[in-house]
Amino acid sequence: MSSDAAVIPFGACPLPLVDSDEILMGHGSGGRLTAQLVEQLIVPAFRNPALERLDDAALVECDGARLAFTTDSYVVTPIFFRGGDIGELAVNGTINDLAVSGARPLALSLAFILEEGLPISDLRRVIESARTAAARAGVPIVTGDTKVVGRGCADKLFINTSGIGAVPRGLRLGAREVRPGDAILVSGTMGDHGVAILSQRLGLELDGELRSDTAALHELTAIALEAAPGLHAMRDPTRGGLAATLVEIATREGHGIEIDECTIPVSDAVRGACEILGLDPLLVANEGKVVLFVAEEDADALLTALRRHSLGRAAARIGRVTDAHAGVVTVATAIGGERILELPFAEALPRIC
Amino acid sequence: MSSDAAVIPFGACPLPLVDSDEILMGHGSGGRLTAQLVEQLIVPAFRNPALERLDDAALVECDGARLAFTTDSYVVTPIFFRGGDIGELAVNGTINDLAVSGARPLALSLAFILEEGLPISDLRRVIESARTAAARAGVPIVTGDTKVVGRGCADKLFINTSGIGAVPRGLRLGAREVRPGDAILVSGTMGDHGVAILSQRLGLELDGELRSDTAALHELTAIALEAAPGLHAMRDPTRGGLAATLVEIATREGHGIEIDECTIPVSDAVRGACEILGLDPLLVANEGKVVLFVAEEDADALLTALRRHSLGRAAARIGRVTDAHAGVVTVATAIGGERILELPFAEALPRIC
Repeated sequence: MSSDAAVIPFGACPLPLVDSDEILMGHGSGGRLTAQLVEQLIVPAFRNPALERLDDAALVECDGARLAFTTDSYVVTPIFFRGGDIGELAVNGTINDLAVSGARPLALSLAFILEEGLPISDLRRVIESARTAAARAGVPIVTGDTKVVGRGCADKLFINTSGIGAVPRGLRLGAREVRPGDAILVSGTMGDHGVAILSQRLGLELDGELRSDTAALHELTAIALEAAPGLHAMRDPTRGGLAATLVEIATREGHGIEIDECTIPVSDAVRGACEILGLDPLLVANEGKVVLFVAEEDADALLTALRRHSLGRAAARIGRVTDAHAGVVTVATAIGGERILELPFAEALPRIC
Repeated sequence: MSSDAAVIPFGACPLPLVDSDEILMGHGSGGRLTAQLVEQLIVPAFRNPALERLDDAALVECDGARLAFTTDSYVVTPIFFRGGDIGELAVNGTINDLAVSGARPLALSLAFILEEGLPISDLRRVIESARTAAARAGVPIVTGDTKVVGRGCADKLFINTSGIGAVPRGLRLGAREVRPGDAILVSGTMGDHGVAILSQRLGLELDGELRSDTAALHELTAIALEAAPGLHAMRDPTRGGLAATLVEIATREGHGIEIDECTIPVSDAVRGACEILGLDPLLVANEGKVVLFVAEEDADALLTALRRHSLGRAAARIGRVTDAHAGVVTVATAIGGERILELPFAEALPRIC
């Protein structure tokens, strides 16, 4: 199934020009256009070691303390969706960027850009939801900002959350630590968030089981760190889904990756919706899942530990890192074939987070 | 001169209802509506000591290190203006929030929300300008994010910059430290940024000397800390101008403040433009100025030290904190009278930063 084929009904341009002189929706999709924009325009301008690693958070030293620092803006539409809303998503998403960096989240910022005319009741609901998510996670929101723009200059409301976390001394974790032979695990089902948003946007009722998986993962990642000394990297597969995470690590670090489609957990509801919508669940965003790269000898212990936590019940081992086929992600398909997993040029799902 | 009178020509609502059930432009203006929104809706939801202080940055402890953490979104229009652009403004503005908290800026994040159709050349120019500003200030941009929304869902581009800084051990600085008897200083002329933006937006050519004062103030604030052990608080008078800073400290901390209009530095160009536009320069945003509250015995030394730095050449002593008239800011006017300085209900200048 081609992801480009799925682009057309949802408003993104299926074949944008690489050398476009304008920003295209695809530049924000998590596909190859996004990678191009970031790697060609942004990273070269701000050249420094922390930014070049392109992990989910940067490492900053301060008076002997090791800090993780991360930022994300949220432009998801609709702002209220089954399983969550933009406020909860913004809090959980930034906690997760810290968590997959191995950091203990310390504090968040929360900055709103509001469109004139937004119902105060909507803002109140989003604030309440961010508050609940932060309280549940035990991470305080310590600083904020509010800007207002005129009607038609924003779409209801956008949120930026940035976060800082404490990184344990001596911890080495990140894409660069991944080694051939590592097992690859996921903490649960793939595609829930993106399919929930998209089905709601399209007014599909389906069977009502489609819900965003938005959740704060810092407890689960702490358990993973504790259970597996050989844990090499964690990523949260958001924009671009599992595919974007795997392709990025394969191409950037020069590894081969082999995964087995049959082992990847996908809920029946998501699988059904993907068939109807012509989507590949591996390309769809998740908001409460983590992908883990771990030394083979620690893989079983890690899987057992993940499954004991409510957010890791459906954890599964899905593949391994190899030293063959550097830069290529190979999928053994359910029907016994093999395909190369590639990033779509411009992914199918704009404004998914 | 009433600031409400100045509202009408520039598109904001002159008399928004307090109990509006929708977001109004005035909610983002730095006036009383903004204060209401923040104090009634946002702060109560996220109750914690760091947020309740409402200083320009929050203080977070990590493994014995004291960190300042701050966030700001930038929605200024136009994105390119005389004296700077949104990229430089976003870098300098967040450095300044750290600087006035007494912190040494360590690292910034940079998150873009881009409108589909934005010329890549505009983005390139903004990135280059942010890069130059960060390099000049010696503060690395270590993490970032890029989102794209469809045409008409944003206005060209918005930026969020968050920042972390190191706060010297033992430093006590902030609105709560201000004492009756403190002298009040400003580091230079008032109103330059806001008047430059507004005159450009209105297509006024005037005499060409109107330029934003955007600048990174961390060197100047470090000099101030060094020169004046009795320095009690620093603020950068951005949205709402000098008036918002003084009124906030007077009302929140229960002090009286007396200032002398004749002593407040305002450039001839800004004064002239304010007369034409019907604006009070005390209500207009600054982006490269600091207001300082200092024990009387250190005031002269501080003024001398500020004036030695290129960003403090026009520094001046403009008034003092009193224990009379708690919560009220009194201005001795140029013509020998006295007026009470009040926040406009909804300030005249939307999207000034």
